[in-house]
Amino acid sequence: MAQTKKYIYLFEEGGKELVDLLGGKGAGLAEMTKIGLNVPPGFTITTEACIDFLRDGNFPKGMMEQTMDALHMIEEKVSRKFGNPENPLLVSVRSGAPVSMPGMMDTVLNVGLNDETVKGLAFMTDNERFALDAYRRLIQMFGEIVYGLPHEEFRGLIEKVKREKGYDEDKFTTSDITEIIKGENEIYRKHKKSFPQDPQEQLVESIKAVFNSWNSRRAKTYREINHIPENMGTAVSIVTMVFGNMGSDSATGVAFTRDPNTGEKRIFAEYLTNAQGEDVVAGIRTPKYIDDMKMEMPQAYSDLIRMCDILEHHYRDMQDIEFTIERGKLYMLQTRTGKRSAKAAIRIAVEMYEEGIISEEEAIMRVTPEIFDRILHPQVKTNGKETPLGKGLAASPGAAIGSIVFSSERAIELGKSKKMILVRPETTADDVRGMAVCEGFLTQKGGMTSHAAVVARAMGKPAVVGVETMHVDTTNNTLTINGKTLHEGDVVTIDGTSGLFYLGELPVEKPEIDKFSKKLLELADKNRKLGVRANANTPEEAHLARENGAEGIGLARTERMFLGNERIPIMRSMIMSESKEERQKYLEQLLPMQISDFVEFFKTMEGYPVIIRLLDPPLHEFLPDKETILNKIYEIKSGKNGSDELQYYEKLLKTVRDLEEFNPMLGFRGCRVGLVYPEIYDMQVRAIMEAAVRVQKEGRRIMPEIMIPLVGHHNELKILMERLEKTAKSVKDSDQVDYKFGTMIEIPRACVTADKIAKYADFFSFGTNDLTQMTFGYSRDDAEGKFMFFYLENGILEKDPFSSVDEDGVGELMRMAVEKGRKSNEKLEVGICGEQGGDPDTIYFCHKIGLDYVSASPYRIPIARLAAARANISEMKPELASTYRY
Amino acid sequence: MAQTKKYIYLFEEGGKELVDLLGGKGAGLAEMTKIGLNVPPGFTITTEACIDFLRDGNFPKGMMEQTMDALHMIEEKVSRKFGNPENPLLVSVRSGAPVSMPGMMDTVLNVGLNDETVKGLAFMTDNERFALDAYRRLIQMFGEIVYGLPHEEFRGLIEKVKREKGYDEDKFTTSDITEIIKGENEIYRKHKKSFPQDPQEQLVESIKAVFNSWNSRRAKTYREINHIPENMGTAVSIVTMVFGNMGSDSATGVAFTRDPNTGEKRIFAEYLTNAQGEDVVAGIRTPKYIDDMKMEMPQAYSDLIRMCDILEHHYRDMQDIEFTIERGKLYMLQTRTGKRSAKAAIRIAVEMYEEGIISEEEAIMRVTPEIFDRILHPQVKTNGKETPLGKGLAASPGAAIGSIVFSSERAIELGKSKKMILVRPETTADDVRGMAVCEGFLTQKGGMTSHAAVVARAMGKPAVVGVETMHVDTTNNTLTINGKTLHEGDVVTIDGTSGLFYLGELPVEKPEIDKFSKKLLELADKNRKLGVRANANTPEEAHLARENGAEGIGLARTERMFLGNERIPIMRSMIMSESKEERQKYLEQLLPMQISDFVEFFKTMEGYPVIIRLLDPPLHEFLPDKETILNKIYEIKSGKNGSDELQYYEKLLKTVRDLEEFNPMLGFRGCRVGLVYPEIYDMQVRAIMEAAVRVQKEGRRIMPEIMIPLVGHHNELKILMERLEKTAKSVKDSDQVDYKFGTMIEIPRACVTADKIAKYADFFSFGTNDLTQMTFGYSRDDAEGKFMFFYLENGILEKDPFSSVDEDGVGELMRMAVEKGRKSNEKLEVGICGEQGGDPDTIYFCHKIGLDYVSASPYRIPIARLAAARANISEMKPELASTYRY
Repeated sequence: MAQTKKYIYLFEEGGKELVDLLGGKGAGLAEMTKIGLNVPPGFTITTEACIDFLRDGNFPKGMMEQTMDALHMIEEKVSRKFGNPENPLLVSVRSGAPVSMPGMMDTVLNVGLNDETVKGLAFMTDNERFALDAYRRLIQMFGEIVYGLPHEEFRGLIEKVKREKGYDEDKFTTSDITEIIKGENEIYRKHKKSFPQDPQEQLVESIKAVFNSWNSRRAKTYREINHIPENMGTAVSIVTMVFGNMGSDSATGVAFTRDPNTGEKRIFAEYLTNAQGEDVVAGIRTPKYIDDMKMEMPQAYSDLIRMCDILEHHYRDMQDIEFTIERGKLYMLQTRTGKRSAKAAIRIAVEMYEEGIISEEEAIMRVTPEIFDRILHPQVKTNGKETPLGKGLAASPGAAIGSIVFSSERAIELGKSKKMILVRPETTADDVRGMAVCEGFLTQKGGMTSHAAVVARAMGKPAVVGVETMHVDTTNNTLTINGKTLHEGDVVTIDGTSGLFYLGELPVEKPEIDKFSKKLLELADKNRKLGVRANANTPEEAHLARENGAEGIGLARTERMFLGNERIPIMRSMIMSESKEERQKYLEQLLPMQISDFVEFFKTMEGYPVIIRLLDPPLHEFLPDKETILNKIYEIKSGKNGSDELQYYEKLLKTVRDLEEFNPMLGFRGCRVGLVYPEIYDMQVRAIMEAAVRVQKEGRRIMPEIMIPLVGHHNELKILMERLEKTAKSVKDSDQVDYKFGTMIEIPRACVTADKIAKYADFFSFGTNDLTQMTFGYSRDDAEGKFMFFYLENGILEKDPFSSVDEDGVGELMRMAVEKGRKSNEKLEVGICGEQGGDPDTIYFCHKIGLDYVSASPYRIPIARLAAARANISEMKPELASTYRY
Repeated sequence: MAQTKKYIYLFEEGGKELVDLLGGKGAGLAEMTKIGLNVPPGFTITTEACIDFLRDGNFPKGMMEQTMDALHMIEEKVSRKFGNPENPLLVSVRSGAPVSMPGMMDTVLNVGLNDETVKGLAFMTDNERFALDAYRRLIQMFGEIVYGLPHEEFRGLIEKVKREKGYDEDKFTTSDITEIIKGENEIYRKHKKSFPQDPQEQLVESIKAVFNSWNSRRAKTYREINHIPENMGTAVSIVTMVFGNMGSDSATGVAFTRDPNTGEKRIFAEYLTNAQGEDVVAGIRTPKYIDDMKMEMPQAYSDLIRMCDILEHHYRDMQDIEFTIERGKLYMLQTRTGKRSAKAAIRIAVEMYEEGIISEEEAIMRVTPEIFDRILHPQVKTNGKETPLGKGLAASPGAAIGSIVFSSERAIELGKSKKMILVRPETTADDVRGMAVCEGFLTQKGGMTSHAAVVARAMGKPAVVGVETMHVDTTNNTLTINGKTLHEGDVVTIDGTSGLFYLGELPVEKPEIDKFSKKLLELADKNRKLGVRANANTPEEAHLARENGAEGIGLARTERMFLGNERIPIMRSMIMSESKEERQKYLEQLLPMQISDFVEFFKTMEGYPVIIRLLDPPLHEFLPDKETILNKIYEIKSGKNGSDELQYYEKLLKTVRDLEEFNPMLGFRGCRVGLVYPEIYDMQVRAIMEAAVRVQKEGRRIMPEIMIPLVGHHNELKILMERLEKTAKSVKDSDQVDYKFGTMIEIPRACVTADKIAKYADFFSFGTNDLTQMTFGYSRDDAEGKFMFFYLENGILEKDPFSSVDEDGVGELMRMAVEKGRKSNEKLEVGICGEQGGDPDTIYFCHKIGLDYVSASPYRIPIARLAAARANISEMKPELASTYRY
């Protein structure tokens, strides 16, 4: 006969390394036991037992025998007996998964009490009221958790007694409690149940209930949202009961070893005297703080301080602790790594590193880069006196202020003339275009993965979703909440970081990098291999990029430079030109403007490389749309204007018609335009070189890199390079400028034939937006409105490939391009300038495939710096990578 | 001192294997010498000498010494001396490149004559008139070729004498000729030149002139058009002169060893008695035929018949021979593989195989697959009595009949209501949309690579271009040629195979496969590994495919089945449905129609696989365009119709707006629609299975393969397969049908992740149209109008990737997909159904990467069968591949 598995670990047998088997709670209790802290005796039933149970519907063979053996050992240790009326051992049955799922699963306290043992407990503790109170708690908890009896009925029973007696719960007498117990049993009967008097039955049913709670709806949802595997299972810890409710020298509480909000190094604790664990959670009584404990229970206080210090050093991280003080004696009931605010996370990491508790690399690995997203987004600045209109789920962080609008059509109609907040019962694919013109979103329905939430995060705009107390009436265009009714145009402030929203305009805090963040980023810079550059189209953006630590510009788009009031008419005339000479004439007019743009850029980025991309979009993007022109022509014809103008608009119409395309994304743009009308790129290259020479003459060192977009065949680059090199050299003193020529890699074919292309390029820069569009065959504008949400919701795609590089597909092509490119040109510089360049997962991937740098939006530079360091550490120290699940 | 290179090969030293060094002519002369045929003594200066000369500007060191040594050897052989006044040796200086470039380069005859040696020749031959005639020919040829003196002036001189004397050239007396010689020397003087009396100078200058003719404009153009490498150079053969103009027992002529038009096995010769080579070329006198020779010169005739037989067996191919008969004695002056018509090529290959001259594989390799394109296109059927309107370049083969139209806009306006021929001075990118609605094209300007020619071949439409004698007036919309003026609407017939065009409608010959073609295709079938299937959307096309030898259907598009008058309203209602139930209702109506489509298909393709692709295009393609709907709404509103209709059109408009996309090619289509609205594919799969069951019950074996389009992620296929397998199985008796599920591979990501996708597919079929669009980032509709022609013309792209698979890019992805796909699913069947599947280069590529089959349009099936065989033979017998330059 095969030996049965080991399903039970005494606390003495376990340890923190067994977290997968014992769950977070079980591993913590075992670890604390091992290092000699005062933990009530107990043991843990493994997650394996849970998995087997959930699969088979009953306990695995041997599990219950091992449980009873362990229980006997505890009985001996504490000299009490489970179910013994004179000297009863009581235990708690606690859930604990390998990954923290706070509040998601169940716990039953005081198991072992029945009509007989309650008397024993009363005798033993010399406190009948306490014993009865413990018993009524067990009956209620057991009923709710094991049999699913309604909480409201139990709560109603207590409220009824309170009402009848006219006093509060903590004043209940033994006879009040006896009455409640009777009432509780009534509730059982009403539901055709009865409370089991057999302690072993209590134990068995409690364990089953905890196991089953793994599959409760809320637990499943939580796992789905947090990407926790379904097959982990929960462990169950059986712990000897200690009581914080045995009088004023008893208490129960939680403590953080550092301040979880600011990160400051001071113990942050809350406790209730004469209370049991669930009282703290329920939040009925106002808790006391650490300074109170120093006065009230100095011994327990100094023990707690010591424990915190031991645990923090032992775990080398800020701990979140549960404790109970029974008649002055401190018991540790749980320890786990404490959750903390973004700010605190950074400060704790930096200070622990400075205190010598953790290494530099660990400090970096402790902070997830997205934290900077929260820190760097403008945030609502509250003074605590504001009354929010309501609260929903904090679906996408940051502050947004605007007039409310109730439909996407209306939002589009109002255009970008005013700042708007879109308010909807819920959003659908049809709203995406409207969402694009709004500052933020507020919805009545939906959760963290609802359409509004997903789109908001993708767009980087604040959103509060699922405000169930709000009613949105789209017929009358009103929003009603708490008796207040708002109409279109009313201004609200939404706080996507907290989920709150307010009437009117609240002050907004500009993001700031504090000294701890600065320090952390310095450490990150020391530890990364990837360079970090910024995508910046204006000198202002370039300036911000420098402030945030960018080491150059990875992408400066030139097209936006042609959109000003002064320039667009010249640009249009250039496009409408019927001959090369005419085109040349208008390009000459644009030249000095381009030069002055670049001069500004180069000055800001002194000493750093600046990649300037030559004109990329289809020419029709610089022209008004057909409808506008047609209206204009109609207007002129009805006699309001002269005929010169008519001629102009008719020519414009013809040009627009000529340039019309079925699929402009795949049409006449980028280097295709540059090849057919080489004068355009000539002008741009001249402008770059003249600006460079001018700035260089001021004694500033500059490094322009000229980038040709949309290359798919090496001949495109070859022909352009031959011409543009000549143009560059024709600029006086250009030989004193240290410039490069290179290309975007944004077409699948460019990746596949990168070896050939690399022969004509000093650098590659992955344009992962277009590369993703073409590799997937998705038009981003269409996909996001039409099927992307469906794909994400139905798990066809795990992640939006426009947010994070699709490693299997797009990434594989990138890998190929790097390999082939470097093989034929070993000096090739390779970076990424697509939007994904600011995404930590993408950055890790870029590190792995050996890119030289990533380029991200100026706001995401700190994220990129940190992510790049984490990527490098993950590679160099795989043990840290697995610890921090990277 | 390094030894100088061998630049000279006596005919005895050379041979046909040295064709790259000796050129076609030199190698042929050497080979004939070697096998003992009667060739005048001579030698060849190598192509290497030419290359060196063109590079350095003078003869390579040692070349001229070797030339003179060889000349001395010839002098000894024929007992004459070059430049000797008593016994002069005369030679011809003949060009000959490794690849035949007929008429492109120059030859100088009678080199060695001067004022002295001409007397010796007269004495030696006892024929003063002959000697003088040879001399005047030399002076003219030398002047034209070496000094570039104008032909017209020499010709004018002769015409003048003819006029003055009142008789014909062949009646010229010695004094007439003496006068002409004087005149010729006048022409030299007029151009500040003089004819060199030094025979060696004549030789040197003639060799230089022949070398330089390699770089003449016409030779360069010819090489460009025919893809002949620039760096080959030409060889020069120096051949002892023999004379066909020494009286009535002398002659010169050309012969084909088989009939080059029909391929029939009979000698086809033309000759002129008492004439020199250039007289035959000039076409002034009417040549005689082989039967005349039999009577006139029986000995030379029987020698010629024998020579032809020897040469054909020796070269194992039909030969094109030049010969001279000097005083009854036959001399061979050239042999080369003869050009032949498409029909003849097939017959000669088959009959030579049947005669045992060549192997089965060689017979196949002899015929280029594109020949079937000419044979299978409808051709103009002439009876020889028609007078063509004019002649241009035969730019794209086949017959087209239609009314002429003078602008693309007008063609689009007239729409597809009538058959049209677009007539333009030349076409540009702007004409492409107009060209798409016409039957064929006729242009005044442009050559074989002009825009009209390239687009016509790409579209597979007949075109005649570069009709320089025609004037196209686009202001008055007229075409004038030979005094005739045509207007819009006049019907013409253009013959893109001959370059001729006619007024009115000529009869057209339906393509037919003769017994030789049938035999050749049978041989091909025996020799190929690739399967050949057809793309067919209707039962008629399927029928044609079977007739042409297709072994199944590689692609049947289902969308075209919804376009009929009866079906489109149901389809539209289905698309406009607001609920699943409503959609279901309309799908139920479409179901029986789909079933009957498939029943027809399956019957035609009994015993063969039929791949049916589920709905692919974006839904908006089934709806009218916005403008049409808006007009309709306006019409209804102005009171002409009821309001029910208004509601319908308003709903239609809303649907069209909802479905509008920026880049429909990359939008909501293919399996994306299939996933969001699974009812549609359910209906189609049900229809396929019900049809299959029905046909199977009639005792016919059928093999439906269901293909899912536009898969880019394995999850798409996984989810659809799970659902559709269930749907298929739910059809009664479906278990008796042998069906498969598979997917198109048409998205770059599908290639990169083919290993994952293959796990859910029984087969892959490359959709190389879309794959090319996405891999290059080209929207085909836009690229062809906007920049593709520019790219081809400027050598950015070598070939149109939509005609022939781009091996470096798209092909590399295909190779990857095959490899990864088979690795994870070794039973995977892989084919191609993109348009390129009928292109021989693509077929060779598909063979190399191990595809199971290609699928082509029904008309291209014979091409595909032959190309598949050639691909296989090329792989198995590389020596044949290199012989036939494959």
